[in-house]
Amino acid sequence: MSPKITTELLKQLRQVMKSPKYVQEPIQAYIVPSGDAHQSEYMAPCDCRRAFISGFDGSAGTAIVTDQHAAMWTDGRYFLQAAHQMDNNWTLMRMGLKDTPTQEDWLVSVLPEGSKVGVDPFIIPDDQWKNMSKALRSAGHNLVPVKENLIDTIWTDCPQRPCKPLIPLDLSYTGVSWRDKIVALRSKMAERKVLWFVVTALDEVAWLFNLRGSDVEYNPVFFAYAVIGMNTIRLFIDGDRMMEPAVREHLQLDSTLEPEFKIHVMPYGSILSELQAIGAGLSPKEKVWLSDKASYALTEAIPKAYRYLTLYTPICIAKAVKNVAETEGMRRAHIKDAVALCELFNWLEKEVPKGTVTEIIAADKAEEFRSQQKDFVELSFATISSTGPNGAIIHYTPVPETNRTLSVNEIYLLDSGAQYKDGTTDVTRTMHFGTPSAYEKECFTYVLKGHIAVSAAIFPNGTKGHLLDSFARSALWDCGLDYLHGTGHGVGSFLNVHEGPCGISYKTFADEPLEAGMIVSDEPGYYEDGSFGIRIENVVLVIPAETKYNFKNRGSLTFEPLTLVPIQTKMIDVNLLTQKECNWVNSYHQKCREVIGAELERQGRHEALQWLIRETEPLIKVQ
Amino acid sequence: MSPKITTELLKQLRQVMKSPKYVQEPIQAYIVPSGDAHQSEYMAPCDCRRAFISGFDGSAGTAIVTDQHAAMWTDGRYFLQAAHQMDNNWTLMRMGLKDTPTQEDWLVSVLPEGSKVGVDPFIIPDDQWKNMSKALRSAGHNLVPVKENLIDTIWTDCPQRPCKPLIPLDLSYTGVSWRDKIVALRSKMAERKVLWFVVTALDEVAWLFNLRGSDVEYNPVFFAYAVIGMNTIRLFIDGDRMMEPAVREHLQLDSTLEPEFKIHVMPYGSILSELQAIGAGLSPKEKVWLSDKASYALTEAIPKAYRYLTLYTPICIAKAVKNVAETEGMRRAHIKDAVALCELFNWLEKEVPKGTVTEIIAADKAEEFRSQQKDFVELSFATISSTGPNGAIIHYTPVPETNRTLSVNEIYLLDSGAQYKDGTTDVTRTMHFGTPSAYEKECFTYVLKGHIAVSAAIFPNGTKGHLLDSFARSALWDCGLDYLHGTGHGVGSFLNVHEGPCGISYKTFADEPLEAGMIVSDEPGYYEDGSFGIRIENVVLVIPAETKYNFKNRGSLTFEPLTLVPIQTKMIDVNLLTQKECNWVNSYHQKCREVIGAELERQGRHEALQWLIRETEPLIKVQ
Repeated sequence: MSPKITTELLKQLRQVMKSPKYVQEPIQAYIVPSGDAHQSEYMAPCDCRRAFISGFDGSAGTAIVTDQHAAMWTDGRYFLQAAHQMDNNWTLMRMGLKDTPTQEDWLVSVLPEGSKVGVDPFIIPDDQWKNMSKALRSAGHNLVPVKENLIDTIWTDCPQRPCKPLIPLDLSYTGVSWRDKIVALRSKMAERKVLWFVVTALDEVAWLFNLRGSDVEYNPVFFAYAVIGMNTIRLFIDGDRMMEPAVREHLQLDSTLEPEFKIHVMPYGSILSELQAIGAGLSPKEKVWLSDKASYALTEAIPKAYRYLTLYTPICIAKAVKNVAETEGMRRAHIKDAVALCELFNWLEKEVPKGTVTEIIAADKAEEFRSQQKDFVELSFATISSTGPNGAIIHYTPVPETNRTLSVNEIYLLDSGAQYKDGTTDVTRTMHFGTPSAYEKECFTYVLKGHIAVSAAIFPNGTKGHLLDSFARSALWDCGLDYLHGTGHGVGSFLNVHEGPCGISYKTFADEPLEAGMIVSDEPGYYEDGSFGIRIENVVLVIPAETKYNFKNRGSLTFEPLTLVPIQTKMIDVNLLTQKECNWVNSYHQKCREVIGAELERQGRHEALQWLIRETEPLIKVQ
Repeated sequence: MSPKITTELLKQLRQVMKSPKYVQEPIQAYIVPSGDAHQSEYMAPCDCRRAFISGFDGSAGTAIVTDQHAAMWTDGRYFLQAAHQMDNNWTLMRMGLKDTPTQEDWLVSVLPEGSKVGVDPFIIPDDQWKNMSKALRSAGHNLVPVKENLIDTIWTDCPQRPCKPLIPLDLSYTGVSWRDKIVALRSKMAERKVLWFVVTALDEVAWLFNLRGSDVEYNPVFFAYAVIGMNTIRLFIDGDRMMEPAVREHLQLDSTLEPEFKIHVMPYGSILSELQAIGAGLSPKEKVWLSDKASYALTEAIPKAYRYLTLYTPICIAKAVKNVAETEGMRRAHIKDAVALCELFNWLEKEVPKGTVTEIIAADKAEEFRSQQKDFVELSFATISSTGPNGAIIHYTPVPETNRTLSVNEIYLLDSGAQYKDGTTDVTRTMHFGTPSAYEKECFTYVLKGHIAVSAAIFPNGTKGHLLDSFARSALWDCGLDYLHGTGHGVGSFLNVHEGPCGISYKTFADEPLEAGMIVSDEPGYYEDGSFGIRIENVVLVIPAETKYNFKNRGSLTFEPLTLVPIQTKMIDVNLLTQKECNWVNSYHQKCREVIGAELERQGRHEALQWLIRETEPLIKVQ
């Protein structure tokens, strides 16, 4: 990929930064966060403003443009990609490295005295606004909200905001009706003595109403807000999609309902004025609950004294703990997903040696096999299909300019997943279709040891996931190796493939404790710039663990892999595994063989079944 | 120990909480934090106000007294002790347990509307003031500073503030002169563009001026503040101790010095007015650097716009990284300390079976052996000498009422350390003088596995200690066990036995990254209420590690044990150790034998040498 040429765009942006049409006073810097008005990770094309202005389209990054400079902050996953996609106008700020300044420190170092820094108040989360504003103020500058988004003013061919049909989910998928979810939410509200709850995250709106959409690629969500009162429900959503009979019936829009369950449908754009009206009508002690990740604009709509802000909303926490219907759905989805991948890997093993399979062809083939499975909806993220040096670009997606042909001489890394109506998958396998070098096997085996250390970990109830992160790194650290990303993220149930409030990362300390029913990924890796990338990822379910003792009656937890796809034994240096680790691999493969084998059989996929049986032969460790 | 009867005291306190003599308006709650005006962990008797009002004298705890209630917050180390020491007037708030309310939440739940909550502004750190004040305000209450300490008003026989002679330390101990430390500090101040730095922590004053004192038991510090300007040095200290010729010479008080190194000695009590004067004279952009742990009173003396607050001061960070003189001193101190413990354990082995050794006698004997060593100053904390069920009281100190006799039937835990002029020690060994049960050995071995996992860990430069905490717990977790305290703390060099900014704990995320030269403890444990306690603690030095690879050129670190005292092999179930762990124990014991053996030999302590040799016989693991 060649970098985007941004000289002209930056010139235009710097002009509107001074234009009285958009700003009361000229601003000296403009922040373009990654994110939409819902703080989504994945965005609709119309919200990809940071990618538009810079060229860098990774999932995380913040651009800041001043009169003289343009700088981009992103994390270790994207250092290479950002460097490739941005032209010389941009300075890459590598977050997590010692000498990289924070956005605040950098602004203070480059801005003239008493500067104004602008940002779209709908795009910046309230907590970030507060921190940034405080840091700038203490250095004599000011953070100011710029009502009209300045990128939109120069983005002449900006696409329209999508407004696609909705998918109602019945109880067999969700386990709990939207009415019962509202009841549970109101009981949490009563506990905290709040009168209103504002739902701003798209996946929280979708989860609450048991609806899915396709406004955003990969995430089955739709643009909407909701405001839940103790006696009212307001859903802010555009388009004629609410006229669909199935949706109307699902939401009981035309039924005679108790008033407290009657859903009032209002235009998406009216959320701000509605919230302002609610804010203006509050009496002392009446509180409105918002996520502190809600936008500055919406948070400001409620007078400070009436706000009740929390890092995680009760919906976010409830959504993370999957009920039986959801867990069973996730199991079914992962079985289907494994069938597709067995087909793919069997096909790759035959085709790669011919030299005709590119990264894009492999990714398309993976999608094709997945789409043959029941209840397949779409992919859950852009497939990372990468071979050789491309594997070291952690969140790489193949495009024609970078598309490499798979060969028997390079490591191939496939990180992919799908949305099925019964669940969301996310799996990474690293394969070699020829003979891996001793060094490649060594690195792969360290990563595997880390994967097993997390997957087999037993830990007390109430443990936060970040306390498990170092287990994934220990084998790599012993040899001076490491990887620059977290170890795991929460996974939604036919929802976002990345969700809070739990995860496994050295970076997150505000995660909620793990509890039975939560689902996270376990994905350590190792990457060598310019040569290869290794990652082994399963989605795992938190389950109770049986232990010999039970300190303070706390109970223990462990993980059960939902992903059941063979880990290539050819890549393993068995001598580096302990007997316990070797047993883990063998029993994991035994389960893959049993569960996925039965499904391959049922689907009549005999060749893939033979592949599965070959790939799940037990490892033998010579003592 | 029987609980302190506090009915009358609480009645008196509740009276002064309403007295116009002390408060402008009656207050409905009064907070008694643990801590003095310097946020010290260990306190002079005159500062032990929380112990006076409640009876609970553990090192950490906060008392809050309202018109109706009296409640004490403390952590897992002190649950048993606090329950023993407090009478029925008090409710114990077990921090870290799920259902325990925070102080703020509890206050909000018990206070009548619009209450005033009082606290001594010199005792509460500014950061705690801010949090508490914000939480109370958002619930309609107010935190108010009460100028006169209300405990002092009812504490009729309160001891005087100590004012003991000072010990100047020369370069052979400190490695760096106080002048050079001032120069380094000023360069950090220049980097951050601050004009003044206020030194409020007692160990930071002591470290900066290469002076030690004995105003506080166990911590060789003295009551003082310092204010460092770019051209001036002010030391706030009382007493005629500054008239000592050695001190005057050390500080060059009578020499003709460049004015920027001239130390102005001022009365201890004048710090507030001096700071207020500095605050009043500042021009825009002139900043004063304070720890955000400095008292609310001192922080308030500087107008908000002029404050530069950081969690860790540059002195705190510099002090943590020991130079060669300090590291060598710490090594010497630990060798002497090990000699004393070998003598003690040899003596205990002979005496315990006679049934005449109590916990107090054992503690006194440990002190006696230590005091025979060169440059011994005092103990570094109250010796935890505990047998059987007392061992489960994590920070137990034997007193006559609880004093138990050591026997061949119970586990004995000794956590002790000393201040030598060349270094500070802190070591825990758990011994059995008869035949331990299989279960006791099992638990001990899990703790040992955790100890080794930390001690032998290799991790990248820049890793924070809290990322290593789970390594210490993994073996315990596997069997459903755990311990309710952190794994390690920073250790001073002839200074406080607990110091920041590094440590190894699941509770601390704001720790500074570990770097070569830092010194921490490694002390996992396991405690069974009512039966026994196990802890294995070494003080370890962070050193560079050699690794096979070197990812991103970051370099790796590991630990070298400074403590060289045998770990009782009788307590180890060798079958539960891996070969690697077994090798670790054997090579550790080999080093103990060589280094401590040579010193025992030199000191002519032949019987203890024989004991050492017996106790360091290699473990043999049957394959």
